[in-house]
Amino acid sequence: MSLLVVGSVAYDALESPYGKVERTLGGAATYFSVAASFFTHVSLVAIVGEDFHPQDEAILRKRSIDIEGLERTAGKCFFWSGRYSENLNERVTLATDLNVFADFRPLLPEKYRKASHVFLANIAPDLQRDVLKQVKGRPKLVAMDTMNYWIERTNAELLETLKHVDILMINDAETRQLSSEHNLLRAARHIFKLGPSTLVVKRGEYGAMLVDKNGVFCVPAFPLEEPHDPTGAGDSFAGGFMGYLASAGSKTDAAMRRAMVYGSVLGSFAVERFGLERLLKLKTGEIHARARHFAKLTQFKL
Amino acid sequence: MSLLVVGSVAYDALESPYGKVERTLGGAATYFSVAASFFTHVSLVAIVGEDFHPQDEAILRKRSIDIEGLERTAGKCFFWSGRYSENLNERVTLATDLNVFADFRPLLPEKYRKASHVFLANIAPDLQRDVLKQVKGRPKLVAMDTMNYWIERTNAELLETLKHVDILMINDAETRQLSSEHNLLRAARHIFKLGPSTLVVKRGEYGAMLVDKNGVFCVPAFPLEEPHDPTGAGDSFAGGFMGYLASAGSKTDAAMRRAMVYGSVLGSFAVERFGLERLLKLKTGEIHARARHFAKLTQFKL
Repeated sequence: MSLLVVGSVAYDALESPYGKVERTLGGAATYFSVAASFFTHVSLVAIVGEDFHPQDEAILRKRSIDIEGLERTAGKCFFWSGRYSENLNERVTLATDLNVFADFRPLLPEKYRKASHVFLANIAPDLQRDVLKQVKGRPKLVAMDTMNYWIERTNAELLETLKHVDILMINDAETRQLSSEHNLLRAARHIFKLGPSTLVVKRGEYGAMLVDKNGVFCVPAFPLEEPHDPTGAGDSFAGGFMGYLASAGSKTDAAMRRAMVYGSVLGSFAVERFGLERLLKLKTGEIHARARHFAKLTQFKL
Repeated sequence: MSLLVVGSVAYDALESPYGKVERTLGGAATYFSVAASFFTHVSLVAIVGEDFHPQDEAILRKRSIDIEGLERTAGKCFFWSGRYSENLNERVTLATDLNVFADFRPLLPEKYRKASHVFLANIAPDLQRDVLKQVKGRPKLVAMDTMNYWIERTNAELLETLKHVDILMINDAETRQLSSEHNLLRAARHIFKLGPSTLVVKRGEYGAMLVDKNGVFCVPAFPLEEPHDPTGAGDSFAGGFMGYLASAGSKTDAAMRRAMVYGSVLGSFAVERFGLERLLKLKTGEIHARARHFAKLTQFKL
């Protein structure tokens, strides 16, 4: 099985009550790839500018992430700057400089085109569809993220892309906005009519919820006393989720449940330190230990 | 084992997008007693006025709730009126008429005084302590609820009561207010220093979380497509929780987890219809079926 991701590779400036970084490797596709790389081989499609640092390239290579699809072009990398509130539950975007990302047209290297698993991170829906068109045949599993911007501004494009997607992975506000339903079960039923057969709702400090034809599965967020930086939590969740499914080569109900747990495990590690710091130090043994801890958090016998 | 509850028996006027009732039996001790009565014998301490209707007395008797401790006095019953927003996630209090409740001094009938399990519903902390003083010896388990009003206005009294309590059961906003900590794990550590050894945080549509020396246990809210009325959800949760523990006569980690599930089951039934309507039609078989459904919602195998 092979996992393909398209999305942003960026530099972030981050500020939280726990510290500040001026420029650190970030972007949805970066967090996704690093998280998924603990489970499977990942092929990355993204664009960077001339300022992309060899040290950051080395970070991706060290995780055995295939970067043949990482296009380099004149200009600067996508740059995002944000500040988190005291309790990390609110965030202000200080700057979003698209730079080279503004003209991104994803082009898949030949060897990427037989991917079995595809994750379309949060980019313009027409670009997400472009990527799918370049993949040969129907991948075993296609998942995607999106955000309020695309729901509001490119709704028709988004609806077209959703027709080709198995799993939609968004947060609760986006779920409600896309479906015009407050209740998440009714929202899921609405979304199933648009194409996806599975909805994964990311609920931040409340965990995540999966809805599909088998029903509902809920996983809490891992209780942490001092999360430092929520950046990349959702993309790390997606990376753990899709990475696990690609490695398992299965999409049974039991596999989807495990994917939710591994997604939550990776998301929980991501927020422990600034940027990618914690994920880059992570050991496979720690992932399995925390997955067992999730069992302890939720299991009961009647 | 015997379960004693002190709290309000009231009439409620309720309005939600699903309907309106002008006057229905409510109050924390009522919801608690009815929910707990599916598991164990409940003794109720509360006060009502001359307008307390024989039909409502019959409701309690039919559930075999002991109402020897239900004091009757001149005046009118506690009356509460509230309106819920379209999504049931916000509520406006339209009226709170304490009436006979203003001069309530709980007096325990002799046979109540050997209760093994005590629940102090949300009333003034000095009254909660008065009840505990009347109980002979140290009950096996004392749990209590409280609210922002007591945290703000009678903080010293509340801290005194907390010294004598095993389980504090409050919502997340109250947890944060009482502890001055946003993070719930840090809040729990703060609260453990005040007396309780267990914190149960009620998180509405996100479920509930228990923190004690064994760690954290989370249970989601039961996914419902059309909850009609959130009134009494927290008290029904408490009733299922304490009712189960009193019937089990155990406070092991496994029993506490089951109590969290039965609490969530009763809370989820309570919100399905207006007021007590659903709980009064509930069958024991439905409780066990929903508890098994909770297992399906949360269980996974690594």
